[in-house]
Amino acid sequence: MKKLVNDPKRYVDEALDGLCLAFPGFRKAGRTGRVIARASGATKGRVGVVTGGGFGHLPVFAGYVGHGMLGACAVGEVFAGPPVEVCGEAIRAADGGAGVVCVLGNYGGDRMSFAQASEEAGDDGVRTATAIVADDVASATKAEHAKRRGVAGMVFAFKAAGAAADGGASLDEVARIAKHTADRTRSIGVALSPCLIPGAAAPGFSVPDGQIELGMGIHGEPGIERRALPPADDVARAMAERLLADRDLRGGRVALLVNSLGATPLEELLIVYRATRDILRGAGVDVDRTYVGHYATSMEMAGCSLSIVDLDADIDALLAKPTDCPFWPR
Amino acid sequence: MKKLVNDPKRYVDEALDGLCLAFPGFRKAGRTGRVIARASGATKGRVGVVTGGGFGHLPVFAGYVGHGMLGACAVGEVFAGPPVEVCGEAIRAADGGAGVVCVLGNYGGDRMSFAQASEEAGDDGVRTATAIVADDVASATKAEHAKRRGVAGMVFAFKAAGAAADGGASLDEVARIAKHTADRTRSIGVALSPCLIPGAAAPGFSVPDGQIELGMGIHGEPGIERRALPPADDVARAMAERLLADRDLRGGRVALLVNSLGATPLEELLIVYRATRDILRGAGVDVDRTYVGHYATSMEMAGCSLSIVDLDADIDALLAKPTDCPFWPR
Repeated sequence: MKKLVNDPKRYVDEALDGLCLAFPGFRKAGRTGRVIARASGATKGRVGVVTGGGFGHLPVFAGYVGHGMLGACAVGEVFAGPPVEVCGEAIRAADGGAGVVCVLGNYGGDRMSFAQASEEAGDDGVRTATAIVADDVASATKAEHAKRRGVAGMVFAFKAAGAAADGGASLDEVARIAKHTADRTRSIGVALSPCLIPGAAAPGFSVPDGQIELGMGIHGEPGIERRALPPADDVARAMAERLLADRDLRGGRVALLVNSLGATPLEELLIVYRATRDILRGAGVDVDRTYVGHYATSMEMAGCSLSIVDLDADIDALLAKPTDCPFWPR
Repeated sequence: MKKLVNDPKRYVDEALDGLCLAFPGFRKAGRTGRVIARASGATKGRVGVVTGGGFGHLPVFAGYVGHGMLGACAVGEVFAGPPVEVCGEAIRAADGGAGVVCVLGNYGGDRMSFAQASEEAGDDGVRTATAIVADDVASATKAEHAKRRGVAGMVFAFKAAGAAADGGASLDEVARIAKHTADRTRSIGVALSPCLIPGAAAPGFSVPDGQIELGMGIHGEPGIERRALPPADDVARAMAERLLADRDLRGGRVALLVNSLGATPLEELLIVYRATRDILRGAGVDVDRTYVGHYATSMEMAGCSLSIVDLDADIDALLAKPTDCPFWPR
């Protein structure tokens, strides 16, 4: 596991510099250097949508800034959430005068930092609302779904909320849409091998030789089952059946994301996609929107995740709206 | 190195099935099942552009089919070029009556198969021309540039030729543009770790612990230098200086591609991009077009490649033209 790194302490800042140089729609905002915002600035009179979290998951989080998606993103250290000050800068960078919705993965640190930053922004007259994404069905039972982590399915809440905001929806309406989309989104991942934090001598977690870990989190949080590496179709089935069992609906139409955690190549995502689509169809669930690729990664971790969103007319229309975000497909 | 595979013998076919299911712009054409073509078919009266090669490099080759890019692609086995029959089917699938240009990476097998398929197509009245991309400066000296392999820089010839073809250019003109773009494109890669062919017990090549191999090919062909893994900026410098030294021009404007070979994450590509851009600017070369991501991979191989294209007004305009190819950025 070899990495292209200069000083590990500069990993985040150099990558963010590269992001802003490579993609002209991004710029750094605030004084900490850890906020990525739209180069065009906030749109006056429109609600802003922000997120934030640890680094090492690109395109999550900062890559989803763009017109029709996020207004700004607070960036932490590798696998460690951003401090309050950075969250506050992100909120201010996205504020166009109509309020800011914080769409956050369900991690305690991120929630607390944004809660405090929101309170401070409120003191300055910036109205905020918060929507939490807790899509990882492997991270807690359905009864305890409020304990679930946010993983790749977050991107759908970013997209729906961002499209609504730039379409002129109110603060309450954007927050409602973000929550509604998050509530209808379910994800599960499978880890094949770990990743390495820059500067660390060894990975902070492992997956034994010849095994996979179903439900492992994107920071190596323990999963629900280890087993010998099965055929790809069985991996897809183990994941898809858990997503189906967790749904409140029967049948219907979904958006399906097959996401690489990093090292797993597009070839294998497509093999998993093919199987998953068949399994869903066998359960009366049609895949109406497809996303396959690198959407939420853990650097060079091998493995993949599945996310499904139960589409309704509102979510479908919002996912379809154009965005100039370079990491969202046409 | 763990893979999501069912039967290794079905790796290519299942991934191609997934590709066509996931991206509605693609369909299989011909009887072999190994040609990916535009779902809309060839455009009548327009020149077709085709390519082909071994599998395991997605999005290269088949992912670059689309309006304004390739008309069809012949797909071989993993790391093994397509047979004559498949190449012939690709040529026919792209034939809109105005001839077909084969834009090929410089691999003997691919060239021979397409040469024979072109001859057979000619017997049936389909005019063809061929342009070879030999962009890998590490694979042979400048004096022997005709021996160089085609690597990630191929995508620029696909794009320029495809844009010209769909813009109504003649067979000769599309072939000229493909060659012109290829002649102005230079690439070099660095391998950090190998990849595994599905079904193989072990990688067919290796990169020693703690080392990198500069110039290693996308199938593990030997490079030009092994050294201890240096800081990312030094990796960028070693690559960029070789590209600069090989140019015929001084200064000028380039398109720059920083491409992951598979496992190397976007974070690290951006660090390399940042350094490369500075190094090029220091040599009076401005980066006018930027491409960072997974463009030409070797499954889960770790490492990256740099490609530069010396822009002129023609190439710049053709790279800027829109395409619906899902793997080409907006």
